[in-house]
Amino acid sequence: MMLQENSSPKLVIIGLGMIGGSLAAAIKQRKQDWEVIALVRNRDTAEYALINNLIDRAIFSLDEVAGVLGENDMVVLAVPPMAFGNVIADMQQKIPACVTVTDVASVKQHIVDEFISVYGEWPSQFIPGHPIAGSENSGVQAANPNLYRNHRVILTPQNSENDGLDASHYDHHFIKVRDLWLAVEAEVLTLSVEEHDRILAATSHLPHAIAYVLVDALTSQLDQSEILRYAAGGFRDFTRIASSDPQMWTDIFYANRTQVLQSIDAFQEHLHQLREAISQGNRSRMSKIVNRAKLARDQFVSLSDLSKRRQSDPINEY
Amino acid sequence: MMLQENSSPKLVIIGLGMIGGSLAAAIKQRKQDWEVIALVRNRDTAEYALINNLIDRAIFSLDEVAGVLGENDMVVLAVPPMAFGNVIADMQQKIPACVTVTDVASVKQHIVDEFISVYGEWPSQFIPGHPIAGSENSGVQAANPNLYRNHRVILTPQNSENDGLDASHYDHHFIKVRDLWLAVEAEVLTLSVEEHDRILAATSHLPHAIAYVLVDALTSQLDQSEILRYAAGGFRDFTRIASSDPQMWTDIFYANRTQVLQSIDAFQEHLHQLREAISQGNRSRMSKIVNRAKLARDQFVSLSDLSKRRQSDPINEY
Repeated sequence: MMLQENSSPKLVIIGLGMIGGSLAAAIKQRKQDWEVIALVRNRDTAEYALINNLIDRAIFSLDEVAGVLGENDMVVLAVPPMAFGNVIADMQQKIPACVTVTDVASVKQHIVDEFISVYGEWPSQFIPGHPIAGSENSGVQAANPNLYRNHRVILTPQNSENDGLDASHYDHHFIKVRDLWLAVEAEVLTLSVEEHDRILAATSHLPHAIAYVLVDALTSQLDQSEILRYAAGGFRDFTRIASSDPQMWTDIFYANRTQVLQSIDAFQEHLHQLREAISQGNRSRMSKIVNRAKLARDQFVSLSDLSKRRQSDPINEY
Repeated sequence: MMLQENSSPKLVIIGLGMIGGSLAAAIKQRKQDWEVIALVRNRDTAEYALINNLIDRAIFSLDEVAGVLGENDMVVLAVPPMAFGNVIADMQQKIPACVTVTDVASVKQHIVDEFISVYGEWPSQFIPGHPIAGSENSGVQAANPNLYRNHRVILTPQNSENDGLDASHYDHHFIKVRDLWLAVEAEVLTLSVEEHDRILAATSHLPHAIAYVLVDALTSQLDQSEILRYAAGGFRDFTRIASSDPQMWTDIFYANRTQVLQSIDAFQEHLHQLREAISQGNRSRMSKIVNRAKLARDQFVSLSDLSKRRQSDPINEY
């Protein structure tokens, strides 16, 4: 690595919502020698981020940093997936190939395709990333410098053996992105782009789709006052993710539609099985499905608690 | 009301799981002059409940109270819906008509039908009830004396004008059951049996069915380690209710199957709409569904928070 120790590294975050804002604040708190710069669209966001000490500097165009970025610096794309196209075209003009580039989108193939359509190939400087963190809140006001602590971040780098990229070059960018996330106390994992999109369609995109549909189905069946008076606490938990940013989730469903449709189809098939069992009054078939699901969910919780205890207790190595 | 002030009222709770155990503990804490009796099946439950001061006395057969219950007393059926049949037949032999009877089941038509099949009619002493409270836990160990505080309880009494019951008799039982729940700080509402089963199918039974199916679909698509590593916090919240008692939920789906199937069908229709929009790549149609759901869910949360603030602040009467 050829870090220029004499100039402070610049972190340029493009788009300052909850995810970008949290990364900005997390780095600003932990890496005092870095300069945290945010490319924002409006003055309110800039003002909020500066007053709340989330960033060092706000810019309104990449032109403001075009001449000054080098291999010591990093650009993080943190705009909604559908806004990537224009931003990437702009980056290609203004960001040199030595600058490390990453992103935070919940879909990966779509983003890689956007880069390929602008650059003609997957540029080796681009290491795709996806922090599995967030909440149903959105916007810079939801920024939290500890959002990524003990959360997983998935990086989906190109397989350098398969595509013949210069391995040393590839490693430099990969290590920089990995270290960015380690600096904010995240755990870094790698997956292929395809694995990422398939797994996240099932574990995240499908549950969001189901939560939106459940609320939609309910409001079509009942009056608001009926839902309000007779819905138990479980309903609030169950539908929490239906309060997530609708624009972002429309983008995600669209951008990962092939995998999302496969997950929806698998879900529909299982729902059909339970529906059949209920409709036949077949209690042993119903019981089998319900028991299987409870067992799987309980195992998920106990294993996930176990892995959390391991993380938070450094003495426990088992 | 002809309360016998000289003898302590007896509350007999048949079945001591989380719901029955919580009611026992709540009354024992708040009504020191009452005798709280639990009919249980095994000695471990009896021992646990006595040691933890949830009840005054455990019995193993209704015979133990058959001769001593009067109009001052109350019986609460708190066994799973599918166990009602045998218990009701036993009650008809041993519980006189002057004793008030209620239940806590999540389905109401099924329970009323069980009474009718034993008694030949809906006995006027029976006031069906359903506390909308609970958690994914179950069993007497999950009993909590404050479970019902600020939670709603739905009573589904017979309409005395329609069926010609003796109104004063009806009122006596209704008022006793209402006061039981008010004593444990619950809010009491009334609905018809049909309204109850239709509304709860949508707000509670459908979400449970969906949560079980989601976990089932996920575990069929992915390895456990994949779910564990890549599922976000939302998944834990979203599937919490899939850890609920499988036996009880099998019973509920079965007992309320007509209404549950209608709710599943409505859900499937809405899921089909979102699937179509995604499959067509129709972002504006996707966006419309997702935005509509988010708006409805946000309204639910803000109105439900508002109503909670009203409850907890007695000065606010508006």
